[in-house]
Amino acid sequence: MNAEALTPLHLPDADTLIGDMGARARAAAKRLAVAPTVAKAAALHAAARQLRAQTTAILDANARDMVAGKTAGLTAALLDRLRLDEARLGDIADAVDAVAALPDPVGAEIDRATRPNGIKLTRVRVPLGVIGIIYESRPNVTADAAALALMSGNAVILRGGSEAVHSNRAIHAALAAGLKETGLPADAVQLVPTQDRAAVGALLRAQGLIDIIIPRGGKGLVARVQDEARVPVLAHLDGINHLYIDGAADPAKALALAVNAKMRRTGICGATETILIDRAYPAPLAIVDALVAAGCEVRGDTGIAALSPHVDPASASDWDCEYLDAIVSIAMVDGLSCALAHIDAHSSRHTDAIVTEDTAAAERFLAEVDSAIVMHNASTQFADGGEFGLGAEIGIATGRLHARGPVALEGLTTYKWLVRGTGQVRP
Amino acid sequence: MNAEALTPLHLPDADTLIGDMGARARAAAKRLAVAPTVAKAAALHAAARQLRAQTTAILDANARDMVAGKTAGLTAALLDRLRLDEARLGDIADAVDAVAALPDPVGAEIDRATRPNGIKLTRVRVPLGVIGIIYESRPNVTADAAALALMSGNAVILRGGSEAVHSNRAIHAALAAGLKETGLPADAVQLVPTQDRAAVGALLRAQGLIDIIIPRGGKGLVARVQDEARVPVLAHLDGINHLYIDGAADPAKALALAVNAKMRRTGICGATETILIDRAYPAPLAIVDALVAAGCEVRGDTGIAALSPHVDPASASDWDCEYLDAIVSIAMVDGLSCALAHIDAHSSRHTDAIVTEDTAAAERFLAEVDSAIVMHNASTQFADGGEFGLGAEIGIATGRLHARGPVALEGLTTYKWLVRGTGQVRP
Repeated sequence: MNAEALTPLHLPDADTLIGDMGARARAAAKRLAVAPTVAKAAALHAAARQLRAQTTAILDANARDMVAGKTAGLTAALLDRLRLDEARLGDIADAVDAVAALPDPVGAEIDRATRPNGIKLTRVRVPLGVIGIIYESRPNVTADAAALALMSGNAVILRGGSEAVHSNRAIHAALAAGLKETGLPADAVQLVPTQDRAAVGALLRAQGLIDIIIPRGGKGLVARVQDEARVPVLAHLDGINHLYIDGAADPAKALALAVNAKMRRTGICGATETILIDRAYPAPLAIVDALVAAGCEVRGDTGIAALSPHVDPASASDWDCEYLDAIVSIAMVDGLSCALAHIDAHSSRHTDAIVTEDTAAAERFLAEVDSAIVMHNASTQFADGGEFGLGAEIGIATGRLHARGPVALEGLTTYKWLVRGTGQVRP
Repeated sequence: MNAEALTPLHLPDADTLIGDMGARARAAAKRLAVAPTVAKAAALHAAARQLRAQTTAILDANARDMVAGKTAGLTAALLDRLRLDEARLGDIADAVDAVAALPDPVGAEIDRATRPNGIKLTRVRVPLGVIGIIYESRPNVTADAAALALMSGNAVILRGGSEAVHSNRAIHAALAAGLKETGLPADAVQLVPTQDRAAVGALLRAQGLIDIIIPRGGKGLVARVQDEARVPVLAHLDGINHLYIDGAADPAKALALAVNAKMRRTGICGATETILIDRAYPAPLAIVDALVAAGCEVRGDTGIAALSPHVDPASASDWDCEYLDAIVSIAMVDGLSCALAHIDAHSSRHTDAIVTEDTAAAERFLAEVDSAIVMHNASTQFADGGEFGLGAEIGIATGRLHARGPVALEGLTTYKWLVRGTGQVRP
């Protein structure tokens, strides 16, 4: 055990540390920005091989984190997020290989035009530059985020949670070994070497050094990052998602979608938290009963509470609550317009869905709901980069700028305008 | 004269004022987001007609600003920016009509896919929401910015400079009359009714009410906005643009481009500020002589200063200076790599250009220069949304997120993901 690694007495102050890491990341980013696709893919495949080759070291490191986590009294859920085994580590390595196989967004043409004066314009994708990732207990983020950043030509500075410090260092060492093997700069993937919280503050203030911060973790982490950051942040704070069951919904679809959207996995940001049922919908009790039967606590407004003794009365705060648990709030609404008004007032603008066989109602819902993802006759649990065919995701954004919804390789790029002339001067 | 209009004693405090304006703008934005193209175009044409119909009132208001400006001792350049006449107002109205004829970005599909489970995905452009514009003396911004915001389905809150307060109110009144005529919400275009600087602070802090702030004006304004804003900002601070004349440049093109890039208009952000000349370029003196003959002050490094008695020695700060004047800094560099290093160290990442007949050198420059606009054999003075065929521009952005380079209608939109299923649940 290397206690010094946890209490790095000889590190510089946080701003100096992050300043130095940022400068090295910027230099690495310049090389990555012009690295060919094959070089980036080769580096990721090498990193995946190193992750597999260093299985023993990584699992040993993870065992130390698990012992410390148990001693510190982490919950069973947190310990499960932290825990690695051979199969999970194999999945992490496979995911790195999978990112290497994705289409490279860098250099892709967004559009092109030839102007009347003969100037040729193209708009091409280029990397964002340096990405900061601040995350909590899941050590897989170390590899996932590094792979996505690297494949999109960016350098990355990772700051993981203290619970996973040994696991993250071991995974980072394997990734760095892979980069070194293939000649890409090791500074392209850096791990903040201290758990000092001042380093997070320095990252959040590192304007000019870090181009974007992506927090991955619970609401407390995301809220702190959004509040303190002077660097742009790509994130979602809440997933208060709605499923609206229209009067013209097919009851079989509505039942299946309600149970799946709420209960498939209750802890993910795409889970439905509130169900709105049109007063004209013929079978609301079946929805309530199916959810109760699936083990869900139902909190309803008076209309819903009147249907079943299994419904608890909802309080006002229930309509703004992300339970992330087997709890749902259900309200009865007077048709589509009322559903739209409720969603406008309470949605966190992540994912909202309508169930209906009425195409006009569906299209109105799709047009008027102002959320990153709007669905018709599909489960909100599909709100995921993998399900959208993006190959992976670095997060889901509910802000309006830059990228919205699932963010993968394209969201980690910007563009520049290339102007090719033959000596044109402007009159 | 209405002195009360200038000293609005009965206005609420800045945060209350901006909070109320923001809430009304948000409500208007919801209606604009689903307004058909023809309705937005009709409103802009009506606004243009009102601008022409109210020529007398607008020019009277402008005359009051001009009198006040002269009394306050504004420079001739500022007074010229402020001044309206019938021709200039006609141009402003024509520009509003021209925006109405641009393709509507809202609803445009960015991409679409059908997933293996049958789910159909489309990514469609939607308005950003509420845009704040903070600008200085040019009253035409009132109409230009409102037109671009409206056509892209956004509500806008305008805060113009105190020099132009009467002009801006008169132009705003004409725009509001146009909106009213066609039934679009008048709150879609609001002008902050006070010149109290606290209102600017309130705008900059209006997270959740205003989606993006676009400052239009000098460096002092932009710097203050970038420094204080908690709302995202789209802007450029400097245009420290470079023209690199490669050893393989055609001397006739190089001469014409150097003079045009620097001298066509020295006060615009796309003007070249530094010229780098490859030591292998055969005719550097002709470049210097042509610039001097065109009335430009030349500040050179030792290599350039040795060429001509008309060159003043450059100081270190010259390489980081945006003159916006008939002054240029010129350095001699040892080939493309040195030019790239100089640009990387000193460019404000707005627009940089290479002059060369060597295609490989040109392509390396286009790939490696990390600026919003990178040019080959074209004048940096082309850095303009109109010249790029965007129809207009609300500004040029040198940040890396959301939009980069000239920003027009597309840059004032974001997107959402539409998911159309047939009852799919996630396994």
